Amino acid sequence: MARGNLLVGQSGGATAVINASLVGVVEAALGAPAVGEILGMRRGVEGLLREELVDLRRQPPGAFDLLRRTPSAALGTCRYKLRDDDLDRALAILRRHDVRFLLYIGGNDSADTAHRLHEYARGRGHELRVLAIPKTIDNDLPHTDHCPGYGSIARFLALATRDSGRDTEAIPQLYPVKIIEVMGRNAGWVTAACALARDDPRDAPQLLFLPERPPAGLEAVLAEVERAHREYGYCVAVVPETLRDAAGRPLGGAEGGFTDPFGHAYHPGVAPMLVERIREALGLRARYDKPGTIARMAQFAVSTTDLAEAEGAGRAAVERALAGESDRMITIERLGDDPYRVAYGAVPLTAIANTERLLPDEFIGADGRSITPAFRRYATPLLGEPLPRYGRLV
Amino acid sequence: MARGNLLVGQSGGATAVINASLVGVVEAALGAPAVGEILGMRRGVEGLLREELVDLRRQPPGAFDLLRRTPSAALGTCRYKLRDDDLDRALAILRRHDVRFLLYIGGNDSADTAHRLHEYARGRGHELRVLAIPKTIDNDLPHTDHCPGYGSIARFLALATRDSGRDTEAIPQLYPVKIIEVMGRNAGWVTAACALARDDPRDAPQLLFLPERPPAGLEAVLAEVERAHREYGYCVAVVPETLRDAAGRPLGGAEGGFTDPFGHAYHPGVAPMLVERIREALGLRARYDKPGTIARMAQFAVSTTDLAEAEGAGRAAVERALAGESDRMITIERLGDDPYRVAYGAVPLTAIANTERLLPDEFIGADGRSITPAFRRYATPLLGEPLPRYGRLV
Repeated sequence: MARGNLLVGQSGGATAVINASLVGVVEAALGAPAVGEILGMRRGVEGLLREELVDLRRQPPGAFDLLRRTPSAALGTCRYKLRDDDLDRALAILRRHDVRFLLYIGGNDSADTAHRLHEYARGRGHELRVLAIPKTIDNDLPHTDHCPGYGSIARFLALATRDSGRDTEAIPQLYPVKIIEVMGRNAGWVTAACALARDDPRDAPQLLFLPERPPAGLEAVLAEVERAHREYGYCVAVVPETLRDAAGRPLGGAEGGFTDPFGHAYHPGVAPMLVERIREALGLRARYDKPGTIARMAQFAVSTTDLAEAEGAGRAAVERALAGESDRMITIERLGDDPYRVAYGAVPLTAIANTERLLPDEFIGADGRSITPAFRRYATPLLGEPLPRYGRLV
Repeated sequence: MARGNLLVGQSGGATAVINASLVGVVEAALGAPAVGEILGMRRGVEGLLREELVDLRRQPPGAFDLLRRTPSAALGTCRYKLRDDDLDRALAILRRHDVRFLLYIGGNDSADTAHRLHEYARGRGHELRVLAIPKTIDNDLPHTDHCPGYGSIARFLALATRDSGRDTEAIPQLYPVKIIEVMGRNAGWVTAACALARDDPRDAPQLLFLPERPPAGLEAVLAEVERAHREYGYCVAVVPETLRDAAGRPLGGAEGGFTDPFGHAYHPGVAPMLVERIREALGLRARYDKPGTIARMAQFAVSTTDLAEAEGAGRAAVERALAGESDRMITIERLGDDPYRVAYGAVPLTAIANTERLLPDEFIGADGRSITPAFRRYATPLLGEPLPRYGRLV
């Protein structure tokens, strides 16, 4: 069994549970006689390259119990793409600290970083076990049932969308349309989660604009909002911040821009643009909610399942590194839904890096604007505690 | 003691706990032999004028237990300003249903509506007890320690601001500035609540733009953001959606703005505008979160204290109406902080209608961009359960 020091880093967009993965790594390492020092890099590989390292054995008592439920990346994070000429410096620092176990918590870009560090160390004869721990609210990594971080943003957005929709339902004569703008890149997992608390047609959202089903253009979006408003008496529509038309052009882009009273032209993003266009073109007063980074940070809406799995993935990575594995990312394998049970597996980093998993067709409603029962079966266990039931007057 | 039927309505912006006030009214009425029918108006006085009434005695078993924790206004709500020529029709409908107890849940505009109905009925010889139940996230009603609805939005925003700030703190090299735009009209209560979870200078927010301390203009805002960024290495600034300069001009610009039926102007563009200007003028990449209506609806961040008081205020209103009081609004009187205890009082509606209570000077930090310990002592008990503690690495 390999022996030596362990280095852990956090990378990419932070989540409500990425510190739980860090705690999982540290606690597994504290229990492993083969591990000497336990070090953390400040702001991922940026800190590694600057040799800004934290001694994780010298934290005050109780620090990790608090960190387990502290959102965001306690080590700091980065979105730094490792250059070829960084590798030499990175390896020199790993050698200087006798790092033999490298744990990197992140998404697909981070898997690429981890893989390149593994390859470079191997080529230069430095024995190094590199394990990646998945983390992304986007839930777009392949070969894993789901990603730590997703369950918590899904819980926040499912609850927030339903709650915000109740507001619109209560006063449609004044504010008949609401746009909820959410994060997400090319995959619709985050957007789809907004519908998970909907169990009545009156519940929000009436429309989900999934990246996998792009509208023909802005006019088509307006026509769909108008139709939904006619059908339900109000309309809550969820849009990803990256909403594009069928030709791939961003809808929040140039055509939505306007000039402020100071003469500055700007592009306010999808939701403010839609609110303005809905008012102008449809004569319907609209508002928007853009929870932004709150949605992926909100510890107060954390999924307890997600939290436990994030920690479990961190522990599993250390165990595999100690057992001699390298160049792999931890995966979550679903063993069953009733009761919901998972195991931690692993796949080669090259199978993860720079790829993305879109929402499959069987999770998207036939109308392209809703989710299917299959998606509910998939996603509901990830939300943790059952969502509260609400009432309506008859 | 008066006998007859009871009519209840909800009015103004909905909250996470306005249904708890409705439940308080209904449950007190169900226990009162003097009350005959228990009716609800759909969408406040709009429903009264259309005679759209709901029979609250004929709801399915368990309905009110679910509604107690269901956000938003289950009866529907409105922002309708009663016209003089509506009063005759309103009174005719009240007479037709032999309504003797009128309970109206809302803010200061609703207090005006309630008072006018009281006066008109009295002048026409129809015996009617009119009690208003306070409800406003803005917390700007005078003569009450605080308003049901405020504790819950305060809890949501205190938690959300701290959590979102951890995101900025983790990656300041990429996203050094965050703007959090919150609701609120002329008073800074909601904005100030965003600082209630801050117990370390690294915690968000670094800047609070309270309406009571308007910046000289946009350039002054930019200078403050730049200074805070220099001091902390990043800056999370909270702004109200109605941010105005010292001359009273809205900083969000006139475009996209509109005026509600009470003459309140809305200018939805503050955060997107600031993000753009911070990038242009300071060269700092900024993002914004605008939780919007989610913040005042979020049942998942409800204050249990607020929830209990909202229900208590509803019960107190029915008890006072039964005892013969009229033309009054329920108030919350704070009896002590340790332990926190309240009692329900009442004041004449004319003392409430069309007035607003600003944040007092002793709650605003000397820098004009923070809160004082006195505000913390005032607001902390309103948040319900203690906020969770977080950790940091050393």
